[in-house]
Amino acid sequence: MVKQDRAIRTRRTILEAAAKVFEERGYQAATIAEILHTAGVTKGALYFHFESKEQLAQGVLHEQDQQFVIPARTCKLQELADEVLLHAYRLQRDAMVRAGVRLTMDQHAEGLDRSGPFLRWSQICRHLLETARAQGELLPHVSPAVTADIVVATFAGVQSMSQTVSDYQDLSQRSTALLRHLFPSIAVPSVLASLDLSEQRGETVHNEIRHRHKTQPTTTS
Amino acid sequence: MVKQDRAIRTRRTILEAAAKVFEERGYQAATIAEILHTAGVTKGALYFHFESKEQLAQGVLHEQDQQFVIPARTCKLQELADEVLLHAYRLQRDAMVRAGVRLTMDQHAEGLDRSGPFLRWSQICRHLLETARAQGELLPHVSPAVTADIVVATFAGVQSMSQTVSDYQDLSQRSTALLRHLFPSIAVPSVLASLDLSEQRGETVHNEIRHRHKTQPTTTS
Repeated sequence: MVKQDRAIRTRRTILEAAAKVFEERGYQAATIAEILHTAGVTKGALYFHFESKEQLAQGVLHEQDQQFVIPARTCKLQELADEVLLHAYRLQRDAMVRAGVRLTMDQHAEGLDRSGPFLRWSQICRHLLETARAQGELLPHVSPAVTADIVVATFAGVQSMSQTVSDYQDLSQRSTALLRHLFPSIAVPSVLASLDLSEQRGETVHNEIRHRHKTQPTTTS
Repeated sequence: MVKQDRAIRTRRTILEAAAKVFEERGYQAATIAEILHTAGVTKGALYFHFESKEQLAQGVLHEQDQQFVIPARTCKLQELADEVLLHAYRLQRDAMVRAGVRLTMDQHAEGLDRSGPFLRWSQICRHLLETARAQGELLPHVSPAVTADIVVATFAGVQSMSQTVSDYQDLSQRSTALLRHLFPSIAVPSVLASLDLSEQRGETVHNEIRHRHKTQPTTTS
């Protein structure tokens, strides 16, 4: 168990170093040598966890996926909103999430498949929208597949503009504004009226998850 | 006049070379030497038009601005849709526009102010939305400034996802889907019912502008 804990910590140290180097240099210019130097681990340790620069990048890309599952909501559109607003909250505060998103948007990352996060997020959104449809939350014309892609793509653009013009200072406001522009086109009015799309929602969900994890027995350290 | 024509052509040649090099290398790694080599012009010619790598990049960034003014529409939300759908059309077909957009989204372009296109586009959208408001096209709660930023940011994300997953093949469909998700939240129903947000709209507007320019006396060559 102790050995496994150490392996998890080492893997995390390496990913944090990779995130930092990719963030500073971009994928293309980053080197394994620099990641090794930043992580302060042995070559053997690094190659035990990651075989190549691309695997390191994929590791960082995966870190933006929600590590904790959002509490299930009766209203699936609220759950979708929670996914978006929690992601915005984490993006403002977690350097690793930020590095994953920036790597996803790194157009000069040749040879790196960056479609993963777009497709994974789209999958999650689509699943929520299909359940929402089955529950009667959606307007009749909505196509879960098309709307899922729109949610993912538009959030990618909103975070990018927020990063460019305010270094993420205004991301919560912009994320709320985004959902207030999208949801009236997809939700039936009674559902729309029940949603919490406020700027504080991301933090609320974050605290809710943290509290839940603290009060339950943990399975990993 | 002949001299001026040549200067315009040389400037264009240099910008096309810069666009190509920025696109291949990213802003950070691109060098003036490589742009010179690609353009095949003298150092003197290049520095006559652009004093620095940043000025070259700003030149490319400006090329994504609409060069021809969209025909004024009675309905200002249609004009806004036309701006977005024409931009999508040009993005699929014009390498220079593509280079400008990619430079705008280049997060590793240190020392390059990339906020210009976001802010200029947002300005244009805001102006159209303010006129739309005065004409009674908007729902009462809409804030032209907030909605303008949402239109610009969400389009940036949609083009980015389209580039990543299909190399812009599906950009027209995605742009139409975007507007169909945003406009119901901002337009009054009677305006909504009158809008052409179809996938062919960008091409229609492009041909309309081209035809108008052909049948009018040109002011520059």
